[in-house]
Amino acid sequence: MSHVVNAKATTESPMQELFAPIRAELVAVEQALRDELHSDAPFVDELLQYGCLLGGKRLRPALLLMTAKAVGTMTADHIKLAAVVEMIHTATLVHDDILDEADMRRHLATVNSRWDNQTSVLLGDYLFTHAFYLSSTLDSTYACRTIGEATNTVCEGELRQVGNRGNFGLTEAEYFRIIGAKTAALCACCCQLGAHYAGADEETVARLSQFGFDLGVAFQIADDVLDLVGDESDTGKSLGTDLEKQKATLPIIHMLSQVSGREKAQMLELLDTESPSTQTRSQLAEWLDRYQSIAYTQQVARDRAERARMALEPLPDSPARNVLEMITHFVVSRSH
Amino acid sequence: MSHVVNAKATTESPMQELFAPIRAELVAVEQALRDELHSDAPFVDELLQYGCLLGGKRLRPALLLMTAKAVGTMTADHIKLAAVVEMIHTATLVHDDILDEADMRRHLATVNSRWDNQTSVLLGDYLFTHAFYLSSTLDSTYACRTIGEATNTVCEGELRQVGNRGNFGLTEAEYFRIIGAKTAALCACCCQLGAHYAGADEETVARLSQFGFDLGVAFQIADDVLDLVGDESDTGKSLGTDLEKQKATLPIIHMLSQVSGREKAQMLELLDTESPSTQTRSQLAEWLDRYQSIAYTQQVARDRAERARMALEPLPDSPARNVLEMITHFVVSRSH
Repeated sequence: MSHVVNAKATTESPMQELFAPIRAELVAVEQALRDELHSDAPFVDELLQYGCLLGGKRLRPALLLMTAKAVGTMTADHIKLAAVVEMIHTATLVHDDILDEADMRRHLATVNSRWDNQTSVLLGDYLFTHAFYLSSTLDSTYACRTIGEATNTVCEGELRQVGNRGNFGLTEAEYFRIIGAKTAALCACCCQLGAHYAGADEETVARLSQFGFDLGVAFQIADDVLDLVGDESDTGKSLGTDLEKQKATLPIIHMLSQVSGREKAQMLELLDTESPSTQTRSQLAEWLDRYQSIAYTQQVARDRAERARMALEPLPDSPARNVLEMITHFVVSRSH
Repeated sequence: MSHVVNAKATTESPMQELFAPIRAELVAVEQALRDELHSDAPFVDELLQYGCLLGGKRLRPALLLMTAKAVGTMTADHIKLAAVVEMIHTATLVHDDILDEADMRRHLATVNSRWDNQTSVLLGDYLFTHAFYLSSTLDSTYACRTIGEATNTVCEGELRQVGNRGNFGLTEAEYFRIIGAKTAALCACCCQLGAHYAGADEETVARLSQFGFDLGVAFQIADDVLDLVGDESDTGKSLGTDLEKQKATLPIIHMLSQVSGREKAQMLELLDTESPSTQTRSQLAEWLDRYQSIAYTQQVARDRAERARMALEPLPDSPARNVLEMITHFVVSRSH
C-alpha cells in the first residue's frame, strides 16, 4: 500500500485505459461515492469530498466490476460494493498517513499540511464505518461477512508487519503471510464479491477469489521491488522507504539467504538503521545486484501473476476476461 | 468519551455493582472477547490482550444485556453483540489516544509509552473490523445495519466536534447534535439491539432505543460538567481538558448566552487559548458560578435522564428494569 496520500484521480494511467469495458459502471461508482459521502457540516463535507478523490486508480472497484462482467450479470449491488471497497481502500490510505512520534521528529516536512492526525484518524474511521453500513444495505449478510473478514485480515497483516519492524530474520513464508493479509486479501474479496453477486457458481467464486489473491500477492511483490529500485534501474540505485521503515521485503530476504558468516553480519549491520546513508544504500544495491535478488524477486512476482492468469482459463472468452488477463501482466511490468 | 486510556478492568465501580442481574452474561462477554481477540503472532496477540482490557466499565455491553433482560429473552446473539459494542467502544478509545502534531509538541509526556501512533491506529482498525465481522455472523443484516449506522454517526459527530474546535459561537442545538452523534448514538444502538434480539415488538424496540439515546445525552452532559468542575466542587476549580481542546460544552455555551457586549468579548478572549493560565481558569470559574451555568447544565442533564427513566415506565417490573432506572440516576450523580 502507498504510504503517500495524494489526490491522483485526474491522471489517466495505462491501467485505467484497460478499464474501457466497465467505463459506465466506474462512472456510476464515482456517483455512488459522491452520493454516500457528504455532510451538512461544511468541515465534514470538505473532508469527505477530499476522501472521494484519494484512492485515485480505482483498481479495487475495477477488479470487482470486471470480475462480475467476466462471469455473469452486472447488478446495482455491484456498484454499491465497488463503492464500498474503494471506501475501505481509501480508509487504509488515510490511516497509513498518520504519523508516528518518531516520524514526526525525523520528517516534519511530511506532515499532512491540510489536517492533523486526529482528523485523519476520524476520516478513516468514517470511511470504514460508512463502507460497513453500505454493505449492510444489501439483502443478505454475505457482503458484510466477506468484507468484515477481509478488512480484519488486512489489519492483522498490517499489525504483523509492524511487529516485524527491524526483523531481518523474517522468513519468506512469513513475508508471504504478511503481504497475503495486508494486500491480497482485499483483492481476493473484490473478485469474490464481483463473482458471487453476478450469480456465478461456488467453484467459480472460489476460483476468482484465488485469482484476486494471487494478483494481489504479485502486485505487492512488484511494489516492494519498485520501492527498492524505483524507475531508475535494476541495480537498486534509489533504495526506498521500506528500508527506512525497517521492513524486510523479498529482495532483502533473498539477499540475506544467499550468504552467511561475516558478510551476513555486515549486511544486517548496514540494514540496522532508519536513515541509511548514500554509502549504505549503494553497498546494499551492490549486494542486491551480486546475488540477483531483484531478478529473483521479479521472477517470483511473474510466477504468481502467471498463476493468477491460469485461474482465468476456464472462463468463457470475453473482453472483461481479456482485461483481467492483461491486468496480470500489467501488475508485474509496471514501473511506477 | 474519555480521552485517557487506562486499563481499569479490575476496579469495581458502584455502577458495576448494579450489574448483578447480568453477572453471568458479562462473564460470557469477557470470554467472547478473549475468544475473538487473539493471534498466533505474539506482538499482535499482546496488543489484542491489552485491547480486551481497555474498555473497563463494560457499560455498553451491560446496557445491551440489561435491556434484553428487561424486555424479553436473552440469547447467544446478545453475548456476541455485547462483545461487538465493547470492541467498537474500545476502538474509539484507542483512536482517541492518537496524538496530534500539536499535542506532541505541548504534551510530550502524554505520548502512549507502550506503542506508537501507527500501532494505535491499526489496533483500533482491527477492533472495528473484527466487530463488523462478528456482527455479520448473525442470521440477518439487522445487527450489521444498526451497528454500521451507529458507528458512522459516532464518527460524523467526532468530526463535527473537530470542525468546531475553537468555535465558541456554537449553539445549544449544534452542541446537542454533536453529543447525540458522538456519544448517544452508540448507547441507543446497544439498547435497540438488546431489545430487538430479545424478541420485543417494534414499538418497544424504538422506545428502548430512545431510552439509550437520552441516557447517552445525559451521560455526556454530566461528563462535560465533570471535565470543568471535577471532583472538587461546583465552582469550577479544576477547569479541564475540553478548554485546552477548545471545545465549547454546555456550561460555556450557557455562560456566553447570559452576557453581551464587553463582558462577552472578555470571556471569548479568555477562552481563546489552548493553555489557560491559573488566573484564566479561576476567572472562568467565577463567571460559571456567577451565571449558574454549572447548575443550569446539571439540571439539563437531570431532565434528560428523567426523560430516559420515563421511557421505562411501560415495561413490566423486573430487577433488570429497576437497574436501568437506577442507571438513569447514576449517570447524572456520579462524581468521576
